[in-house]
Amino acid sequence: MTPEQEPGATPSPALVFDLLMAHQRSAALCAAIELDLFRAVGEGPGDVASLARRCSASERGIRILCDYLTITGLLVKDAAGYRHTPTSAAFLDPRSPSCVASTARFLSLPAMREPFAHLADVVRKGGTTLEGDGSVEPDNPIWVEFAHSMAPMMAPMTAPLGAIVLDGLSGPVRVLDIAAGHGLFGIEVARQNPHARIVAQDWAPVLEVARANAVRAGVAGRFETLPGSAFEVEFGGPYDIVLLTNFLHHFDRPTCVGLLHKVHAALRPGGRVAALEFVPNEDRVSPPMAAGFALNMLASTPAGDAYTFREYESMYREAGFERMAAHRVPTGPHTVVMGERAAA
Amino acid sequence: MTPEQEPGATPSPALVFDLLMAHQRSAALCAAIELDLFRAVGEGPGDVASLARRCSASERGIRILCDYLTITGLLVKDAAGYRHTPTSAAFLDPRSPSCVASTARFLSLPAMREPFAHLADVVRKGGTTLEGDGSVEPDNPIWVEFAHSMAPMMAPMTAPLGAIVLDGLSGPVRVLDIAAGHGLFGIEVARQNPHARIVAQDWAPVLEVARANAVRAGVAGRFETLPGSAFEVEFGGPYDIVLLTNFLHHFDRPTCVGLLHKVHAALRPGGRVAALEFVPNEDRVSPPMAAGFALNMLASTPAGDAYTFREYESMYREAGFERMAAHRVPTGPHTVVMGERAAA
Repeated sequence: MTPEQEPGATPSPALVFDLLMAHQRSAALCAAIELDLFRAVGEGPGDVASLARRCSASERGIRILCDYLTITGLLVKDAAGYRHTPTSAAFLDPRSPSCVASTARFLSLPAMREPFAHLADVVRKGGTTLEGDGSVEPDNPIWVEFAHSMAPMMAPMTAPLGAIVLDGLSGPVRVLDIAAGHGLFGIEVARQNPHARIVAQDWAPVLEVARANAVRAGVAGRFETLPGSAFEVEFGGPYDIVLLTNFLHHFDRPTCVGLLHKVHAALRPGGRVAALEFVPNEDRVSPPMAAGFALNMLASTPAGDAYTFREYESMYREAGFERMAAHRVPTGPHTVVMGERAAA
Repeated sequence: MTPEQEPGATPSPALVFDLLMAHQRSAALCAAIELDLFRAVGEGPGDVASLARRCSASERGIRILCDYLTITGLLVKDAAGYRHTPTSAAFLDPRSPSCVASTARFLSLPAMREPFAHLADVVRKGGTTLEGDGSVEPDNPIWVEFAHSMAPMMAPMTAPLGAIVLDGLSGPVRVLDIAAGHGLFGIEVARQNPHARIVAQDWAPVLEVARANAVRAGVAGRFETLPGSAFEVEFGGPYDIVLLTNFLHHFDRPTCVGLLHKVHAALRPGGRVAALEFVPNEDRVSPPMAAGFALNMLASTPAGDAYTFREYESMYREAGFERMAAHRVPTGPHTVVMGERAAA
């Protein structure tokens, strides 16, 4: 419960206006990224005139934007001008290897933003107002952009996921990475286990991004691709591990159970499935990022959700899995939901 | 300085994603207002099925929206469903006399939102990308919507403003309310001083809203209207008090000084001008609401700003005023900037 939610809290119109104006924070950050402002701040000098010149922008615009970014906690202002905070230096300056600025591109796609302009209609309908199946429409080109631009957001989750899925396994493993996207999760497993062979499944144009990443990571020799729909292609196998990263949340329960059945059949006895997911507590309102993710699924899919562990457990069980377990990923809002196919 | 801005702070990608997704908070609140959800929550029962029926919406949509509003601190969730927080009961339930839900209408107008979809262009240009002079284009119809829907946001500021401008004055006073909008500030002065006579200036269609409010407040007999542009109409006078509420921030310094000259000439010797304004500290990044308001002026006007007290003081002095003083309004983010015309 936040302080505002306590029964004795003082009613605050400021909270209401803060929420009504919250869209300006997204706009300011996206504008700064588009103007390459965080590179200019990092390289300095940080006075308004220099930043305006570097960003080919007006001084009035840069001054007001930088003040606003300071108010939101993303920059520091002093007599000499604007400087990075630890967060903007690490995650917004393109010179930083952990820069996540590219994620703004995916999150600003019309297909990602448009439903929020008509959210009342979405709530009335109970699902996306985007054409067809929205973000889960077959071969939707947004997933190529996702693979390109969201990789830095997912990168911190790859090492913990790799450690969790490989725990207790050694020697050669065959891994199926369903809806691989940028491919980073399978690639990380290949990095952590030099005998692992990865089969990455996704739409063909998306797999080009994954393959390029595998080449860059030096694991291309153990990285195959399997183009097509996860619901339609033959998975082959048997696999020791199947990864389902950021995928199940797009679908309703029957669709998830159907896919989990197919995954179960593709695993060797004793093999394991690992879903990387936004898993809220059973109250569905905590923790904030995992629970709040449900609104994205309402806006962009016909029937997706942020499922609780109990719901995943029930889907896994219905698909034949056992020994279900949840591992919170310490580096992000995600949880790895594990299940095993019974040993022979 | 927020914790994120300390030099030793741990860099946080969560802050970046929170800002990139912040637009969803505005969308969720606007959708809930449009669906009349806060009335349904207030009247109860607050279970998903009842709320969905009351809002003519889907259960999936209502559940996910209410969970999201709970995460943002606007509702409380328990086993029986969703309940008001003190804030949503007072400021979002239409049954409450202090409800500010109508402000979402003004803040969601395309003219208010559109520049934020192209904010990088606005920063490059240094002023609004809206047609003409944006929000300050003569006779812009947005000000009729403002007068209708923003009155509840301004209502808490009227009593303190009235007390400040009337302080030490008694008996009959003539008051000019420039850019009166909903008219509430002049009306409140008329309420606090039964001998006050108000002249409300604004575009004619806006003044219809102000007049209706004056009738409702029972002060219509002491309430005249003066239709036209503040820069062009004859003010008449002399006045004891001139109100400039939420007006000067739309314009550049020379325009403000020019108008203040005209105001000075319309005051009797010893008369006072009172601007209700967003006045940040000299650092321009605190307090957050007053300082952050500058971004609105960047987005919607050619050259407006959130001026500091030192800047207002200098404008007032150039226009002939003396005895400048700033009074923070305790009930909102505003400051009243006073100045006097020298006694004869």
